[in-house]
Amino acid sequence: MRIAIYGYGNLGKGVECAVRQNADAELVGVFTRRDPSSVKTQFGAPVYKADDILKFVNKIDVLISCGGSATDLPVSTPVLAQNFNVVDSFDTHANIPSHFEKVNSAAMLGRHTALISSGWDPGMFSLNRLYASAILPEGETYTFWGRGVSQGHSDAIRRIPGVKDARQYTVPVPEAIDEVRRGEQPDLTTRQKHRRECYVVAEEGADLEQIRQQIITMPNYFSDYDTTVTFISEEELLKNHSALPHGGVVIRSGVTGNGNKHTIEYKLTLDSNPEFTANVLVAFARAIYRMHNRGDNGCKTVFDIAPADLSVLSPSELRKQLL
Amino acid sequence: MRIAIYGYGNLGKGVECAVRQNADAELVGVFTRRDPSSVKTQFGAPVYKADDILKFVNKIDVLISCGGSATDLPVSTPVLAQNFNVVDSFDTHANIPSHFEKVNSAAMLGRHTALISSGWDPGMFSLNRLYASAILPEGETYTFWGRGVSQGHSDAIRRIPGVKDARQYTVPVPEAIDEVRRGEQPDLTTRQKHRRECYVVAEEGADLEQIRQQIITMPNYFSDYDTTVTFISEEELLKNHSALPHGGVVIRSGVTGNGNKHTIEYKLTLDSNPEFTANVLVAFARAIYRMHNRGDNGCKTVFDIAPADLSVLSPSELRKQLL
Repeated sequence: MRIAIYGYGNLGKGVECAVRQNADAELVGVFTRRDPSSVKTQFGAPVYKADDILKFVNKIDVLISCGGSATDLPVSTPVLAQNFNVVDSFDTHANIPSHFEKVNSAAMLGRHTALISSGWDPGMFSLNRLYASAILPEGETYTFWGRGVSQGHSDAIRRIPGVKDARQYTVPVPEAIDEVRRGEQPDLTTRQKHRRECYVVAEEGADLEQIRQQIITMPNYFSDYDTTVTFISEEELLKNHSALPHGGVVIRSGVTGNGNKHTIEYKLTLDSNPEFTANVLVAFARAIYRMHNRGDNGCKTVFDIAPADLSVLSPSELRKQLL
Repeated sequence: MRIAIYGYGNLGKGVECAVRQNADAELVGVFTRRDPSSVKTQFGAPVYKADDILKFVNKIDVLISCGGSATDLPVSTPVLAQNFNVVDSFDTHANIPSHFEKVNSAAMLGRHTALISSGWDPGMFSLNRLYASAILPEGETYTFWGRGVSQGHSDAIRRIPGVKDARQYTVPVPEAIDEVRRGEQPDLTTRQKHRRECYVVAEEGADLEQIRQQIITMPNYFSDYDTTVTFISEEELLKNHSALPHGGVVIRSGVTGNGNKHTIEYKLTLDSNPEFTANVLVAFARAIYRMHNRGDNGCKTVFDIAPADLSVLSPSELRKQLL
């Protein structure tokens, strides 16, 4: 399958690596809104102008849309879905239903197949919430994120005057996870589930206490959490906080029969959030390509994909080797 | 959907409980090879002779076949699949391909939909092996079982002369799990992955040391493992070892990009192996019923089921609530 990357940030670079791990995939190229001559790919893939994408109709089997969920994907995925099979990682949970409708209309019109909101959350975590709740109807599902870097929260800190750079880690509270694992089905507040650790590089002469107050009282982002703020040097930030690890766990505990308890747990521990997300996108691109070849058009989510379509192995190989 | 249970052992009883947790399911009855008047169901479901099953064509939407994999299911599932949609938990891994072919031919002939090898392993563990290997092509997958009761190994001990009753626990070796979690991708022997703990009630006057030797040297079952044998009284067996807990974990670790490590882990902790398995079967029965209503006949495995079909929620509810 011929894959192309639309948008070349951390996620696009991850997709470039992921394609090389899949023998049935090849990379057509990278499409960018920047000047193509200013963009150098990691392994020499050609770079094209995003505006030239329509010249590649019939030369791309699946386009992986690697823009941001805030402003890029709501516009680009519907437009692209009319002319290409497309996969995105749209992750603004509240807007998924409307994004779905727009992408579905476009894909139906263009007779293409699209997948939105793939990755690990939404994505693999969503799948595990679904499987676990279908298996244990009488139970409760919990999602914990981290320990990992939240890009959105890091950006929010960077917008505070006097802040030069920042990294925010979302940290699950171990006691809360333990309670859930024991099957106690606790009611947990936002504060009881996660802590937030902030590493901040301040401008010279900035009022550190004022920055700290602005962070810990920031509504939505920090005010509902126990937040720690540590000021560090730029060197230390680069040295110890330049990676993008993440992960988390989905746990459902439930009961059956005469009070028997069961716990289903799905846990990810990731050195690189964008690279792992990219690998998920490429596996699902394979499924979308196959579904399109079967005439199954329109917008899909991870819930609609039969797992066998994700694998390079044939159905009979899967039954023999993995069942 | 109208469910019926074919075979009323531990698994059949679990299905009877599971149906009550699913508002869209109702239980038609239990079919048994025993004299129906000798079988009392837990919640008053009617009991019929297995031989009368064909009188219930068109009265059952999905038949859940709850026999054993050694002798029951290889015969019964193909026969039943010709006349009913059927779900089984066939778990003899080596014979899955031939079982699949037989059930597929029968289901195609009768225009029904069948699912074989559902449950947790094969079943949910298989799904997680597939998802994880599709996402991380460069990696290694490990499956650990336990701590839990292995019925097959308990039966093997009971067949030794001088043994009155026995319970065998499969126990994963914690050090091996830790190595795998750290992403070290170790080569592990059978002995390094699991230990076996046996609790044995001996007949009066039996030679305990001879029983112990027969257990620990038994090929396939015990000779490749570190096995402990503890002799206990019948009372203690009933008091402390009458439950059927089980569980385990599937872990895949892999790398992306420039050596970034990732770990995907799916873990089950189950108070009751048969009740949990039964809940999985009923969720998949829902999918099989829907696929049959769409004209999608033949034999399926868990790999062929789009996750959305497992849930009582509609696709738009799923996107809104679980994605």
